[in-house]
Amino acid sequence: MNIILLSGGSGKRLWPLSNDIRSKQFIKIFKKPDGEYESMVQRIYGQIKAVDPDATVTIATSKSQVSAIHNQLGSDVGISVEPCRRDTFAAIALATAYLHDIQGINEDEAVVVCPVDPYVDLSYFECINSLYEAAEHGDRNLVLMGIQPTYPSEKYGYIKPAQDANGNGGFTFTEKPDRQKAEEYIRQGALWNGGVFAYKLSYVLDKSRKLLGTSSYSKLFNGYRDLEKISFDYAVVEAETSIEVLPYHGEWKDLGTWNTLAEAMEEPIIGDGRLNDTCSNVHIINELGIPVLGMGLKDMVISASPEGILVSDKKQSSYIKPFVEAIDRQIMFAEKSWGSYCVLDVGKGSLTVRVTLDPRHKMNYHSHEHRDEVWVVVSGGGKTVVDGVERVVKPGNVVTMPAGCKHTVIAGEEGLELIEVQLGLEISVLDKRKYEL
Amino acid sequence: MNIILLSGGSGKRLWPLSNDIRSKQFIKIFKKPDGEYESMVQRIYGQIKAVDPDATVTIATSKSQVSAIHNQLGSDVGISVEPCRRDTFAAIALATAYLHDIQGINEDEAVVVCPVDPYVDLSYFECINSLYEAAEHGDRNLVLMGIQPTYPSEKYGYIKPAQDANGNGGFTFTEKPDRQKAEEYIRQGALWNGGVFAYKLSYVLDKSRKLLGTSSYSKLFNGYRDLEKISFDYAVVEAETSIEVLPYHGEWKDLGTWNTLAEAMEEPIIGDGRLNDTCSNVHIINELGIPVLGMGLKDMVISASPEGILVSDKKQSSYIKPFVEAIDRQIMFAEKSWGSYCVLDVGKGSLTVRVTLDPRHKMNYHSHEHRDEVWVVVSGGGKTVVDGVERVVKPGNVVTMPAGCKHTVIAGEEGLELIEVQLGLEISVLDKRKYEL
Repeated sequence: MNIILLSGGSGKRLWPLSNDIRSKQFIKIFKKPDGEYESMVQRIYGQIKAVDPDATVTIATSKSQVSAIHNQLGSDVGISVEPCRRDTFAAIALATAYLHDIQGINEDEAVVVCPVDPYVDLSYFECINSLYEAAEHGDRNLVLMGIQPTYPSEKYGYIKPAQDANGNGGFTFTEKPDRQKAEEYIRQGALWNGGVFAYKLSYVLDKSRKLLGTSSYSKLFNGYRDLEKISFDYAVVEAETSIEVLPYHGEWKDLGTWNTLAEAMEEPIIGDGRLNDTCSNVHIINELGIPVLGMGLKDMVISASPEGILVSDKKQSSYIKPFVEAIDRQIMFAEKSWGSYCVLDVGKGSLTVRVTLDPRHKMNYHSHEHRDEVWVVVSGGGKTVVDGVERVVKPGNVVTMPAGCKHTVIAGEEGLELIEVQLGLEISVLDKRKYEL
Repeated sequence: MNIILLSGGSGKRLWPLSNDIRSKQFIKIFKKPDGEYESMVQRIYGQIKAVDPDATVTIATSKSQVSAIHNQLGSDVGISVEPCRRDTFAAIALATAYLHDIQGINEDEAVVVCPVDPYVDLSYFECINSLYEAAEHGDRNLVLMGIQPTYPSEKYGYIKPAQDANGNGGFTFTEKPDRQKAEEYIRQGALWNGGVFAYKLSYVLDKSRKLLGTSSYSKLFNGYRDLEKISFDYAVVEAETSIEVLPYHGEWKDLGTWNTLAEAMEEPIIGDGRLNDTCSNVHIINELGIPVLGMGLKDMVISASPEGILVSDKKQSSYIKPFVEAIDRQIMFAEKSWGSYCVLDVGKGSLTVRVTLDPRHKMNYHSHEHRDEVWVVVSGGGKTVVDGVERVVKPGNVVTMPAGCKHTVIAGEEGLELIEVQLGLEISVLDKRKYEL
């Protein structure tokens, strides 16, 4: 089975756990049987592999997520990197061309496209497998998943069965109806459109040639910025008459808000949190190293990270986006291809950061024009390179790097943790020049 | 006017702003006309000086508060340091002896003792001035302040007027009656006992000799640990028949809980906090450098500091103490005689701290047996001494101190800020040896 997972969004609605460079799908919030936590993307990847160990998984995403994906899923997964955001038609066209041109998949093979962030059970992937089989061996151009509605939602798109004058089946698509319309649709047997599509590669390659002028991966990639911003639903699905819809009756949650995310948590508290016995229906997700104490709270979510602290009534939490957009701040933590960093202190002419390198990983060899840096190794070990000079380092070692000097650090077998103090009046993530080592 | 302010308590009930070494009276929470914030102790000291610029103020407290008092009030204030806690009779006896023996105040002069933490208006100090005058020039041994009750509280002590068989006035004292009794007392004209006493020094010196065997400051100080734990109310007031009570009708709040403290705040938010318009009666006090966002909250207090994060219904906040006692953690920030420190990161074999030295202040010259330290100066400037070697330092300079080496830092005219990385497997505040420089 070939699967394209669409991984989008900057995820302001799950602030402070998501930020401009960590989307919600990378937050480790789901408890595994072994007690460790996994993210949405890890969970869905594991579920796909459980249903089909040989599945070829490709993630369509932006450059900013590549490090996090490799950190969380390893290097087996394919990534179709979108040079910028151009909505789902361009993303699916690019990823389909990636499968054909880069991964060498035959255009007669099918692929299933699905979002990376639904909270579902394994039967969802069995349904996806059926979509795949139907697309590869059936006679329809497109096979969609229709999700059995559990309430007359005004947020989702609906797939309604429609019959033409000859009694042949067809479908109509409606986005976000009001409640009354939604109730009527459900009575008529409509299903939610979960954004899951299966097709043969040739189908979308052909659409790309017709609508974008090319189905070549390199041409799509290089001209990506000029592609029209249009959704796959609008550009392809709604104009297609040869469609099959397979219903899905299992668990399906859209974890887009704190309210729905909390419902999917196995236990009410992640991290150091305490609630007194007058609290009810309260969830705490605390990524800070200090305790959270809740007293006398009802129907609330508390979330703390180096980005900030959210205390919200669960229902109100869905209105968070404009408030978070108004908080204009430096990114306080990030996953990198080599590990992670977390800002500990912001001073007037300084920034103190904890840097964690995964075993045998290294930073880029780089320099800064406007800041000096000092590293104090606090755990693990490895090697630093400063202006070409190598040095083996262990806890307690100090490395000083004046502005302009080229530097990197390479972790040994046990990884390496260091405190980095940046010094200068113009500290910026943009002040960075990379070199070959 | 001579005043003794009793400054006690570790203040767990205002966690996370107060901790074992920062009591609630030092939290800067009251907005001054100039927009700066001041603490309870700063506010009450300023009020005393506004009513009597020549007032001699002595603070009776424990050693752990001396640095904070000097930081916040300067060096003009007298401090009677209690070697350990021995309740209010011993504290008042020691402070009275301090006034007499150390400050040379004549035993015919009066003094007023009052707690450091009531939230009151200026008329309270005019009433205190009247107590002072009455004690110095009147014919009673003790003059007390009686606070006009505003509700039948079960938390306070009551002073009830009583008449003997000859119609002469007297008073009886009752602690924490139930609500019904409290209502009855108020009908009978009882007042709250605010713990404010005025007397001539000779009166308490005499009591000290009778009850403790000495009125000598040095003998009381040196034998303090063996003094009986007993309250001044119990040891002196309740046994005294020559008492006058002056009523106080102004504002009086006991700021012992988040609920009452929030009521005394000029504005609902201190620090970086935002509330959406569905919030009502919510207070935020945020000492962390990251934003707090509250949505859909009612009747709540949110407080964040390096010690932790409290999210509490206002009424529930009065039950906080046992929960805080269960949080057994390292002290994360503290005021010192030379400035302050704040823990930024706790690692397995490391601790990262931001150290701020006030202008021209210095640490003790000291060493650690079980940890290495690294200083990175990030702002200001000054001088370090390491094993006797002096060095002028400025931002970017790095000082390394292996275990066992003697070290200190002395701030220059603009103060000095440094990031200290402690390295070792047994990092403890107790691992410190001091030396003469």
